[in-house]
Amino acid sequence: MAHVIFRSATRADVPAILELLTDDEIARSREADAAPPPAGGAGAEATGGLTPEAVDAAAWAAFEAIDADPRNELIVADEDGTVVGTCQLTFIPSLSRRGAERMTIEAVRVRGDLRGRGIGRAMMVWSLERARERGCGLAQLTTDKRRTDAHRFYASLGFEASHLGFKLAL
Amino acid sequence: MAHVIFRSATRADVPAILELLTDDEIARSREADAAPPPAGGAGAEATGGLTPEAVDAAAWAAFEAIDADPRNELIVADEDGTVVGTCQLTFIPSLSRRGAERMTIEAVRVRGDLRGRGIGRAMMVWSLERARERGCGLAQLTTDKRRTDAHRFYASLGFEASHLGFKLAL
Repeated sequence: MAHVIFRSATRADVPAILELLTDDEIARSREADAAPPPAGGAGAEATGGLTPEAVDAAAWAAFEAIDADPRNELIVADEDGTVVGTCQLTFIPSLSRRGAERMTIEAVRVRGDLRGRGIGRAMMVWSLERARERGCGLAQLTTDKRRTDAHRFYASLGFEASHLGFKLAL
Repeated sequence: MAHVIFRSATRADVPAILELLTDDEIARSREADAAPPPAGGAGAEATGGLTPEAVDAAAWAAFEAIDADPRNELIVADEDGTVVGTCQLTFIPSLSRRGAERMTIEAVRVRGDLRGRGIGRAMMVWSLERARERGCGLAQLTTDKRRTDAHRFYASLGFEASHLGFKLAL
């Protein structure tokens, strides 16, 4: 943890981010549509093999869309130049709450072999501070019902599991 | 329902939308941070009194922000020129799912005295069709754990309550 910093992703980070997401695709096939536990857990380890050439055009286009959007931020946890975690922050403007934005956190991932070291926690604390800087009134996320370790993790950060999260594949 | 259409909100709709949101602020004070039931339920009736002059600058600024953002759409249900429902759609670009956006639905409201007539259902069906038109891979929303009527409503639309929704006031 000593050398982990959090920053916006650049194009050079895209292959590593996709590896983290693919990691979770594997977990997902075992355990349905679930965020991986941010600490502990039996996540697959990163394979370390995705090259920029292997990134498809849709992913590059999605990165450019996020990068150009002032209400979306793709974040990486960077340990001495290596991407070890990621999350995506979306700031949603709203007529309620006197016009304050709400921050939605998606795609939280920490590299499987590095869990339990506090990287996920530090990334969430950093993200919540980012929301406060922008004047957001609320932060929100959803996580699979069965991920009880993730539930404890988010509760320990002050989140309340007050809602059900409904999903519909289109 | 015969004359209800769904469309993007204009500046002229803002006072009516704020009334619908304020309606729910009243419900919220009774029942915590909860979306109102889309059908039935004991929602407060719209008071019909908010004038454009009573809308504060923050709400106007939020409307302008939403209106100018190609990834946010403020929708109204319009019955013969009267706003009877609203929701906000946010399209979130993502590196996963081959770059497909996901649609988040927030601030779903139907006027208290008009619930049970299918307006909420028609608004959700319309919104899901809007997501499909954009090529979204997923639609998602959260609703208060205690709103069992809302849970049945969203399940009947095909949504699965697979996740817990965590919120943190900032």
